[in-house]
Amino acid sequence: MSRPQPLPASALPAAAARIPGRIRFSDCDPAGIAFFGAWFTLANAAIEDFFDMTLGVDFHHLHGERRTGTGFVHAEADWFSPGRMGDRILFTPIVTRIGGASYSTTLHAHRQETELVRFRFVNATTDLDSARSRPVPEDLRGALARYAASCESLAP
Amino acid sequence: MSRPQPLPASALPAAAARIPGRIRFSDCDPAGIAFFGAWFTLANAAIEDFFDMTLGVDFHHLHGERRTGTGFVHAEADWFSPGRMGDRILFTPIVTRIGGASYSTTLHAHRQETELVRFRFVNATTDLDSARSRPVPEDLRGALARYAASCESLAP
Amino acid sequence: MSRPQPLPASALPAAAARIPGRIRFSDCDPAGIAFFGAWFTLANAAIEDFFDMTLGVDFHHLHGERRTGTGFVHAEADWFSPGRMGDRILFTPIVTRIGGASYSTTLHAHRQETELVRFRFVNATTDLDSARSRPVPEDLRGALARYAASCESLAP
Amino acid sequence: MSRPQPLPASALPAAAARIPGRIRFSDCDPAGIAFFGAWFTLANAAIEDFFDMTLGVDFHHLHGERRTGTGFVHAEADWFSPGRMGDRILFTPIVTRIGGASYSTTLHAHRQETELVRFRFVNATTDLDSARSRPVPEDLRGALARYAASCESLAP
Repeated sequence: MSRPQPLPASALPAAAARIPGRIRFSDCDPAGIAFFGAWFTLANAAIEDFFDMTLGVDFHHLHGERRTGTGFVHAEADWFSPGRMGDRILFTPIVTRIGGASYSTTLHAHRQETELVRFRFVNATTDLDSARSRPVPEDLRGALARYAASCESLAP
Repeated sequence: MSRPQPLPASALPAAAARIPGRIRFSDCDPAGIAFFGAWFTLANAAIEDFFDMTLGVDFHHLHGERRTGTGFVHAEADWFSPGRMGDRILFTPIVTRIGGASYSTTLHAHRQETELVRFRFVNATTDLDSARSRPVPEDLRGALARYAASCESLAP
Repeated sequence: MSRPQPLPASALPAAAARIPGRIRFSDCDPAGIAFFGAWFTLANAAIEDFFDMTLGVDFHHLHGERRTGTGFVHAEADWFSPGRMGDRILFTPIVTRIGGASYSTTLHAHRQETELVRFRFVNATTDLDSARSRPVPEDLRGALARYAASCESLAP
Repeated sequence: MSRPQPLPASALPAAAARIPGRIRFSDCDPAGIAFFGAWFTLANAAIEDFFDMTLGVDFHHLHGERRTGTGFVHAEADWFSPGRMGDRILFTPIVTRIGGASYSTTLHAHRQETELVRFRFVNATTDLDSARSRPVPEDLRGALARYAASCESLAP
């Protein structure tokens, strides 16, 4: 398991989304830094906003009315520097794979130019009523593909 | 990234600790299953108990009076089956590496014989006042080494 | 709004349930003490165990298969002393009112003889599918009434 | 304990701050609505922003460098309507009392014109190093007083 190295924010594709987040008092632990579990919850909030604002797919409608889950089958994070309360974070999502019933993303979390954390996620789409796998919905698939293409064509 | 396969609880070393935990109502999301972020918090509670009950190193005293952090530099999880509210979980920690100022563990989470999640963690020891790396404290190092040895010698 | 005064644990009814809980690292904030929001989540875990172990009503089955919610319409807490990471807490629930479609409880949280927090809750029973009020289920009503009676008859 | 009645957003002082928040997937429970404990955490995030943006007192600097806590000695909430995932909330804080070493606030949470929750808080200022009470810092006291006065003079 080779350890990844942090990247400056400017090294990421200019066309990629930058989703703002903030480390709250309640996210921090007695060591005074963001608790590792809180980072995953912060990441999920960023993904919700990425769906809504960038992909144009309403995350809450998808899980609510459309009964389609995007559950995590894999999640990992590498921490490079601690996050502190009040820190304003920019999350940069990169789509790395779109499969039949799952997709993979990398999510970079920067405080200004400093990458604090890098996440890698694999999410699988399911029917929330039957708890069975279902194909990535067409609108989500199309939006992920367009976003991935735009990031690549405009990479610095 | 090859996907790991779930192991029955009985395949893990008999001498390994089994730390109980429980999925609470508040850990579950509108999909009715344990939220992925909540799983990391549940895992950390299991690690606290592993320190106290198995290693004989008081986790809270370590971080409080001894001002020694065991921050995560890497965390990952693979989900095999969803956890549901009320599920009683047994967490089985395995120590896989003890370095100079960090250590690695695998943490298996089972509901009876079914592995629901497997975590892999790398934790680095730090001085919480200076925020600098410090060697793994001797008592913790010794306890981790003895635990690792006992798991290996008694592996089924 | 008169401020309540802490009571020693021994002043509470001997017949009342004592539900154990523990303040985790992740429940604590940069001030080194349990975050006020975390206290409410700890209280809810205690209520789940009170339902299961004392009342004999499976909290998760009630909300899951039976589709009956016990949502909070009122919650309040008075803090007397800070909770610290690692603290072992005993939660003592007292049933103070059983209405047609709601019930009220007081929940005391002690570290040994010291009351740290006192909660007062009003919960309303609802049909989770229609989101409408429904009467307190008969088994829950009976169990709450028996518990309330046992606390009173055996009060010191 | 008389139950308060919800107020339309327009009934609150026009000069009062409106702090935006959002109910996240992770804030919601298997009943599909915001978990009561999550509401307190959402409220605290709103208070952080109220300090920074309206009062001009940096919440994180206050707790960090200035080592001044604003711990809760009392918190209560009345729920009028459930919050659902994705809901955009406006929090309206009202300062109701400024004492020597504590202050009281009411915090209204609306989704458009509908009040979902109303909080009442009492916070006490402490020296985080000695864990002892300390007077409300002068800059915070002045800012709270000016804000309270502006809300009253411009009440509709």
